Amino acid sequence: MSSLPTRRLLDALGTRLPLIQAPMAGSQGSALALATSRAGALGSLPCAMLSPDQLRTELQALADAGGGLPFNVNFFCHAPPSSDDVRESAWRAALAPAYAAFGIDATQIAAGAGRQPFSHALADVIEPFRPRVVSFHFGLPSAELMTRVRSWGAVVLSSATTVEEARWLEAHGADAVIAQGLEAGGHRGMFLHDDLTTQLGTLALVRQAVQVVHVPVIAAGGIGDAQGVAAALALGAAGVQVGTAFLRCPEATTSAIHRAALAGPDARHTALTNLFTGRPARGIVNRFMREWGPINPAAPAFPLATAGMAPLRSAAEAQGSGDFSPLWAGQYAAAARDVPAAEIVQALAAGLPA
Amino acid sequence: MSSLPTRRLLDALGTRLPLIQAPMAGSQGSALALATSRAGALGSLPCAMLSPDQLRTELQALADAGGGLPFNVNFFCHAPPSSDDVRESAWRAALAPAYAAFGIDATQIAAGAGRQPFSHALADVIEPFRPRVVSFHFGLPSAELMTRVRSWGAVVLSSATTVEEARWLEAHGADAVIAQGLEAGGHRGMFLHDDLTTQLGTLALVRQAVQVVHVPVIAAGGIGDAQGVAAALALGAAGVQVGTAFLRCPEATTSAIHRAALAGPDARHTALTNLFTGRPARGIVNRFMREWGPINPAAPAFPLATAGMAPLRSAAEAQGSGDFSPLWAGQYAAAARDVPAAEIVQALAAGLPA
Repeated sequence: MSSLPTRRLLDALGTRLPLIQAPMAGSQGSALALATSRAGALGSLPCAMLSPDQLRTELQALADAGGGLPFNVNFFCHAPPSSDDVRESAWRAALAPAYAAFGIDATQIAAGAGRQPFSHALADVIEPFRPRVVSFHFGLPSAELMTRVRSWGAVVLSSATTVEEARWLEAHGADAVIAQGLEAGGHRGMFLHDDLTTQLGTLALVRQAVQVVHVPVIAAGGIGDAQGVAAALALGAAGVQVGTAFLRCPEATTSAIHRAALAGPDARHTALTNLFTGRPARGIVNRFMREWGPINPAAPAFPLATAGMAPLRSAAEAQGSGDFSPLWAGQYAAAARDVPAAEIVQALAAGLPA
Repeated sequence: MSSLPTRRLLDALGTRLPLIQAPMAGSQGSALALATSRAGALGSLPCAMLSPDQLRTELQALADAGGGLPFNVNFFCHAPPSSDDVRESAWRAALAPAYAAFGIDATQIAAGAGRQPFSHALADVIEPFRPRVVSFHFGLPSAELMTRVRSWGAVVLSSATTVEEARWLEAHGADAVIAQGLEAGGHRGMFLHDDLTTQLGTLALVRQAVQVVHVPVIAAGGIGDAQGVAAALALGAAGVQVGTAFLRCPEATTSAIHRAALAGPDARHTALTNLFTGRPARGIVNRFMREWGPINPAAPAFPLATAGMAPLRSAAEAQGSGDFSPLWAGQYAAAARDVPAAEIVQALAAGLPA
């Protein structure tokens, strides 16, 4: 028998299970979202790195094949930084030994942002598709954009990494809060703070978030199996969001290098790093993180750090190496298995009350 | 109905409940241990800061008033560092502005260790008392000392902060492993690693530890109420160790300054700091941590950092300020309440299966 918070969440999401497949930009598209939604969870489409045309194509794929199932479309809503030539130059100089080792001409690397925040232009693209759920990372978009999203009848989610952020999101109109504990892979959703010491472990965060907000709380971070789901519900969470456990599924677009790292012993050691994008995100520790970070205050502001890293990543990957790749993973990568996504959903669902 | 791991743990500890009151040196003695053992949990006596005479007095108090109840005596088992005059001088210079502000003559501060590791001399003191449980932090003592402790029939526990440490402790003779997640207050028990990025959130650590060791796993870190206990058991833990939730109990010796910090809004923000002892430990962020840390690579090696900080702490506390005090707390300080320890035990026990 589901708890009241779980029933409220199921009503909001329109799913059979209180489980969300976490949006993972760069490692999945509509195929994983379709597979997880078909299995009864809420599939998510990460949109931060899609052009408007790519976004339309992916949404059309979900509409064509989804049979009316609910989906979540996920956007970043950071304030884009102004470019900073001095900082960019200093960072390129810091990376110079790596450029030299790969024979990369650093003067030919274009600057620029790897990720666009949610905007009216992107809202124009998704509006005709009327997604059931729209989720955000790094807070919420402007009140005007929020009004627009709500006008479609969409349910709005966002991530909180502290008790204060959970309160803020509820006060600013989130219909449910994703409590993203420190164990989570990928970008920390932190937006009221930039001090990493404010970040709470999943257990401590979920337990406290459920006591300060009235909307349903979705636990995220370090959860990858039935036992993790049961623990999250015991803490008072209405449901669970899981990412890393899906990264090795055939429906994900995770690179071969990333899959190998997830399946090997290196996946035991992840760290928060700002090297790849400018914001802290959790990934498997590799050479780039060991030698330049994992946290380096000289890295350009989010998302500008992507530009300087990209050619190093490409050159290393061309040699079969993940030394300069973002190998995003949470602290329970051992939960990821090389099985269809529906099997992961089924394993997670075994932790729900009968 | 208790699970098999819980029944094994209860057999080992000799308690009615699979709950351990965490040893908290500087904030409690025999009184809290007595109160929690009488309530059905395992009370712990932190011995790291006791002289042999003080230790004997405390053990006698437990023997006299304990009525045969089981207790845990806890020791550190670090390798004492050699003194380093250059490092000590540099650190005193870094603290000079604070010494000057309080009118402290830094040349009069004695160097020296604030904490002694477990030794034959300490074993001599505890041997006649035959404690049911002996727990260690920072690994395990020498094989010779382990043999001696085992010869008393004592059950041996120690803390693991990573999956590797859990495996190591089992292989080296621990009868149960305390999985100390990142949320935990006080010193990190880490001993195979000194890289803080290796440290796992409680949820991720407990879930993985139970899959790699055969001995019972005790969850610690961020647990302070029935829901936390239920979550830990759902992850596969045999039992739970709780510290911070007891810090405001009348039976604890927590200072008034520390109690006020725990009860106020500052307790929401803790951080790992090496400033107070030389090893990372979690406490409420205060002025010392903000201005000199929280992690400062110049701080003397554990436990030598205690000496330089002590006069600052005394001077600030004499003015009613906790600016230079170690305000140890985990990430769920809101669970600490100003009630008798038996009430906290009872609240935790409500999370156990009926």
